[in-house]
Amino acid sequence: MNSSTRKLLTIITESALERVLVGDIEKLGAHGYTITDARGKGHRGPRTAVWDESSNIRIDVVCDDVTAMAIAEHLQVHYYPNYGMILFMSDVAVLRPEKF
Amino acid sequence: MNSSTRKLLTIITESALERVLVGDIEKLGAHGYTITDARGKGHRGPRTAVWDESSNIRIDVVCDDVTAMAIAEHLQVHYYPNYGMILFMSDVAVLRPEKF
Amino acid sequence: MNSSTRKLLTIITESALERVLVGDIEKLGAHGYTITDARGKGHRGPRTAVWDESSNIRIDVVCDDVTAMAIAEHLQVHYYPNYGMILFMSDVAVLRPEKF
Repeated sequence: MNSSTRKLLTIITESALERVLVGDIEKLGAHGYTITDARGKGHRGPRTAVWDESSNIRIDVVCDDVTAMAIAEHLQVHYYPNYGMILFMSDVAVLRPEKF
Repeated sequence: MNSSTRKLLTIITESALERVLVGDIEKLGAHGYTITDARGKGHRGPRTAVWDESSNIRIDVVCDDVTAMAIAEHLQVHYYPNYGMILFMSDVAVLRPEKF
Repeated sequence: MNSSTRKLLTIITESALERVLVGDIEKLGAHGYTITDARGKGHRGPRTAVWDESSNIRIDVVCDDVTAMAIAEHLQVHYYPNYGMILFMSDVAVLRPEKF
């Protein structure tokens, strides 16, 4: 079975951002995304502010490296300063690379 | 602390497939699975069809390499042509390998 | 874009443990966590007992290696014998390491 490597980009943030982030993600070249509802706790931009939201979302995007970096940079510039948001990336093997 | 490496196999697909996929996953040798409800967007089999489902599921399976490959091949043959489905794999460290 | 490596620790367990686990995770030094509701099947401590819970949770924690190991050891000692619980870890790239 042939497999290829792609990036799995996971974004955890406030659910109020769902619609605008989905638009950004598609505009920046991702072919799909998956959203799950979540809750949790983290630290918002300024270190002193705690981000404790019951209505968070988790967005997972599988895409090529260039697209993953573009999305990460875009989010860091536009949302990190004012929203509770974390983002992490790892490599995953996929079967049909043309889908991503 | 001893740890071993296993495969984390993640399947994102239409929720209508939940029952049949769970049966397949168990029959192919996985010792457990976790399902979360999700929503998202992707591309279905034929490149022109967009898969935009509010009722998707995410199934995560931690298992050995052989089982992960068997599940992936089975899904690719039986469901990829007719359902919205993506699948990706990565290595994870587990503490009690006999559980997986 | 600068990125650093952190551990992604994923715990899947019975939802009844949510409050106590969140307390443990914070006490052991993690700066945040994300919880999603899940369902699934696994094997409980004694190999003969099947853990089949509709109300499970998935907790994801991104933290440094030392904190991840401390949490994993704590959970293994305190909860593995009596609760349905699995735990797996992998490396992820993060953008703002000071958040984790």
